[in-house]
Amino acid sequence: MKELGYLVQQVRQKRPLVHHITNYVTVNDCANITLAIGASPVMADEPKEMPDITGIADGLVLNIGTLNQQKLASMLSAGKVANEKGIPVVLDPVGVGASEFRRVAIHQLLDEIKINVLRGNISEIRSIAGLASVSKGVDASNEDIGRDEGREEVAAYLARELECVVIISGEVDVISDGQKTMCVKNGHAMLGNITGTGCMCSSLVGSLCGANPDNILEASVVAMVSMGIAGEIAYKRAGGLGGGSFRVALHDEISKMNKEMIERMGRIHEGQ
Amino acid sequence: MKELGYLVQQVRQKRPLVHHITNYVTVNDCANITLAIGASPVMADEPKEMPDITGIADGLVLNIGTLNQQKLASMLSAGKVANEKGIPVVLDPVGVGASEFRRVAIHQLLDEIKINVLRGNISEIRSIAGLASVSKGVDASNEDIGRDEGREEVAAYLARELECVVIISGEVDVISDGQKTMCVKNGHAMLGNITGTGCMCSSLVGSLCGANPDNILEASVVAMVSMGIAGEIAYKRAGGLGGGSFRVALHDEISKMNKEMIERMGRIHEGQ
Amino acid sequence: MKELGYLVQQVRQKRPLVHHITNYVTVNDCANITLAIGASPVMADEPKEMPDITGIADGLVLNIGTLNQQKLASMLSAGKVANEKGIPVVLDPVGVGASEFRRVAIHQLLDEIKINVLRGNISEIRSIAGLASVSKGVDASNEDIGRDEGREEVAAYLARELECVVIISGEVDVISDGQKTMCVKNGHAMLGNITGTGCMCSSLVGSLCGANPDNILEASVVAMVSMGIAGEIAYKRAGGLGGGSFRVALHDEISKMNKEMIERMGRIHEGQ
Repeated sequence: MKELGYLVQQVRQKRPLVHHITNYVTVNDCANITLAIGASPVMADEPKEMPDITGIADGLVLNIGTLNQQKLASMLSAGKVANEKGIPVVLDPVGVGASEFRRVAIHQLLDEIKINVLRGNISEIRSIAGLASVSKGVDASNEDIGRDEGREEVAAYLARELECVVIISGEVDVISDGQKTMCVKNGHAMLGNITGTGCMCSSLVGSLCGANPDNILEASVVAMVSMGIAGEIAYKRAGGLGGGSFRVALHDEISKMNKEMIERMGRIHEGQ
Repeated sequence: MKELGYLVQQVRQKRPLVHHITNYVTVNDCANITLAIGASPVMADEPKEMPDITGIADGLVLNIGTLNQQKLASMLSAGKVANEKGIPVVLDPVGVGASEFRRVAIHQLLDEIKINVLRGNISEIRSIAGLASVSKGVDASNEDIGRDEGREEVAAYLARELECVVIISGEVDVISDGQKTMCVKNGHAMLGNITGTGCMCSSLVGSLCGANPDNILEASVVAMVSMGIAGEIAYKRAGGLGGGSFRVALHDEISKMNKEMIERMGRIHEGQ
Repeated sequence: MKELGYLVQQVRQKRPLVHHITNYVTVNDCANITLAIGASPVMADEPKEMPDITGIADGLVLNIGTLNQQKLASMLSAGKVANEKGIPVVLDPVGVGASEFRRVAIHQLLDEIKINVLRGNISEIRSIAGLASVSKGVDASNEDIGRDEGREEVAAYLARELECVVIISGEVDVISDGQKTMCVKNGHAMLGNITGTGCMCSSLVGSLCGANPDNILEASVVAMVSMGIAGEIAYKRAGGLGGGSFRVALHDEISKMNKEMIERMGRIHEGQ
């Protein structure tokens, strides 16, 4: 998969419009990272305008952080428009294990909308898969990180169940469409010390898939590689200064991400 | 118009309170840029407190990004209080062409509230003026940027129709009150690569007008010049590092903006 | 109080989960500062999920910036769960003097929930104490800053009335439980030039108290000292560059805050 870098070029050339219905904590990071990779973000969640906004978009990102009932209604409405139009839908199940409300919401979204990519941390993905899981709010719990069961198997199993690409973010990212499972070893632990890196990954996935709707698995891999490489360079440049500087550098590096960086620095291998 | 720099000094001396009803994507940028130019921001959108909050404010900024029905009701209520008090009202029609909901909302706001300044990109302003326009979400579309019709004429026409100052942001900013039309050639293309620069311009307009309510046209010009100059210096300082660093430098330069910088670096000329 | 630095170590070791119901202006800053000090933030305000989210949390921060009726209902619900569980509740009365809606809301929160720490600026605290106060939106007014009455007395009086720790932020921070009153002289004026420093203080208080629920007064002192020291170092490193760089450096320094820095640089003394 060394020749996947052109998928980023496609984003910069096509400038896909990515409709986000997302939380108010990291929404600014999501908008900026979408612009940085070369796409155009539009955030909107008024139920009345869902058909119009999704109707002009090239991709849809649904993120359940700070979900409420109105946002859920808008997600269901926007998701149906996206399905009718055939544009990719990315679902980020932020903190799904933390409340019954979010669990019910995720299952309603999965029931009523055809999702193309589901991206979460190991606790979130295990919760959706119906496996034992311990919630630590919106972060993966140490209990779940330390479990024996292979994350590749969990991703592949859930991908087959949901008929979509499943991404488990972590020290090694696992991306599976149920048949093929890829692992990405880029990244740095400091990505866990700032808020929004998971949400930003989902925005990158939405941007990559919006520009490459016929290569959802590969686009998802490149999104995760992009964030991982940016994290590595940002850490080298600014990690010693602290979390604030690291975050700025992370945005910098996504804004400079290109084909050559992905092909030279990407550490992608096929899972067992 | 070389001697307009004192209008920024007025902001730093008077520290006007600027009430924002705005979107949750760029609201933090708006609050920080308002503080950076020397004003004091207050964000509030609960309908019940609109009379109280607008009642102590020196200016009102209405921004329809992530608009919903409750925010619209609050805008209508706050706008009427602002009109009764005689404080300047700035309207930012974010993505107005992207949905019927936003189009109807803008026309309701323009019908029921006396607006002092309307600031948008060419696609947004054309949409409001009833001219042909292609929506690219919240960004100006290339189709609209490339049209032959003069932007000065569009701004002046709409300013006369709405009896307010109209600002069209772009590579050259156009500011017109219908009689006099000014062009500002400051700025850098990189301002389009981060989110919120348009919204921040509207906050600067609100801050400048809040401190200079008797000079709305000149205050609007200085707001746009300030953002343009800050963008130029920020690009020189940090543009090569990437979008994250550029954004930090942009906030830096607004926090240092002063009379001398505006008068030395401002590139203002009267339109045809 | 020179030996209080271990309270920060407790945060980094225990990684308490801090549930925030807060405004959409500074929420990203609050999440990042919570992570920077070593705690884990979760932001949620859907009424339906309050019992679940607060039920797994170690601390609760209620911040009334951009309050609305639904958020208020969620705060009341979450606060009761926190009280039942015995986890610390921090209340930040942002702009309480600016509207009748916020005044009524604060008194309802204080009536129905046992608050452990109340943190505000002098205008906000005076408003709650029923003392003469002039509102400047969400900032302290110069009128209130200049009043003769001692801030130590106001804090101690209100602490006794409300049976909680009261923090008045300012050039000198005052922290009182009604019996003991501490003053913190760390900080820098530039903290007032960026948005969210007050909100971030409340998040630090929530993080410190979440990890040290049996030492609420001391935890509150260390939270304020941490922000003050970070402000001092950030100013030295980046103050000359402007507000944007200062803000980045502030986040950096909180992410590096440790026992040794607090004990070496903290300027804490007991009030008269």
